[in-house]
Amino acid sequence: MQIGVLLFEDFETLDVFGPVEFLAGIPGAELAYYSLAGGLVGNHHGISVMTTAVSKETVCDLLLVPGGRGTRSLVDDLPFLTVLANLANRTRFLLSVCTGASLFARAGLLDGQKATTNKLAYDWVVSLSSMVDWQRQARWIRSDHVYTSSGVSAGMDMTLGFISDQFGVALAMEIARRAEYHWNSDWQEDPFANDPEAGTQS
Amino acid sequence: MQIGVLLFEDFETLDVFGPVEFLAGIPGAELAYYSLAGGLVGNHHGISVMTTAVSKETVCDLLLVPGGRGTRSLVDDLPFLTVLANLANRTRFLLSVCTGASLFARAGLLDGQKATTNKLAYDWVVSLSSMVDWQRQARWIRSDHVYTSSGVSAGMDMTLGFISDQFGVALAMEIARRAEYHWNSDWQEDPFANDPEAGTQS
Repeated sequence: MQIGVLLFEDFETLDVFGPVEFLAGIPGAELAYYSLAGGLVGNHHGISVMTTAVSKETVCDLLLVPGGRGTRSLVDDLPFLTVLANLANRTRFLLSVCTGASLFARAGLLDGQKATTNKLAYDWVVSLSSMVDWQRQARWIRSDHVYTSSGVSAGMDMTLGFISDQFGVALAMEIARRAEYHWNSDWQEDPFANDPEAGTQS
Repeated sequence: MQIGVLLFEDFETLDVFGPVEFLAGIPGAELAYYSLAGGLVGNHHGISVMTTAVSKETVCDLLLVPGGRGTRSLVDDLPFLTVLANLANRTRFLLSVCTGASLFARAGLLDGQKATTNKLAYDWVVSLSSMVDWQRQARWIRSDHVYTSSGVSAGMDMTLGFISDQFGVALAMEIARRAEYHWNSDWQEDPFANDPEAGTQS
């Protein structure tokens, strides 16, 4: 299984590397890190990761898109959204974490589907597309082959949910066990949706 | 607060980037990634991260050391252990995640202190030093200014515990909240210690 991670300047650290830790546990998983231009991609946690440029030949079975501060400008970046849409349209499984859903939404990948996103930034993301059936109360949402999660840490729970759906709950539990991870396995359980500041972050 | 992360080939992904996500929430935190030789450091999840070579001028307030497959050879790598010991001896706070404790132990940084480590690899780590008061049942252990955690995901809980100890529980809870993280905040609560395979991984 070819797993592609699409990075951009100022991605959120755990949005990427939590899911990566668990996706790597799928038998035969191979991970690759992409960006529009290729080369080193950095973020506000001082991380600088090597990436390969997305090309028309880039093929993956699963595409992971994180959120983070970088999404704020990318939601209006037509070249980025076009590359994302093209890559996503030839990819079987799409997973977004946190405000990564804003990029999926703007690339038209969530039209007519249920989806969720970060709870503090919820109002901002929802404002970006009225074509999406946004769900405020959800740790993550599965809509056919597209998975979207709530903020940052929820990406790990969603990833185990994805693995459970596609490869069986036994594998998901085994991967969690080996990482000594307490899996929040109920996608409907989302106390962060009731945060008094939910939706206030712009 | 200068936070240094010491990387090596085949570090474990989440051991590093879970704690990084939370440490970055400390006001004034600045993160830097080091390795012995500097340059790109990779792991078995296909990640390649840029690092700076550790020098005699390298100074940090906190040093984070992950575990992972790479520790298996490093526990006998005297140049690495010497650099680690020298850097650690001029650093206030030391945090290890998972089998990162094996490196702390072999560098003599845990002598006479309580410490814990990954539960599946527990017997291997414990065999490396009889000078350490190893604790099998603990999500993490604080021993003065040295923190050691259980496997992979436990690093996140330990990091929030460290932040709580040093900067107050309110900051730890705020950082967890913003990342929508369910903090396992009790360092003594460790169901993974009772894993039937605990200690069997060599």
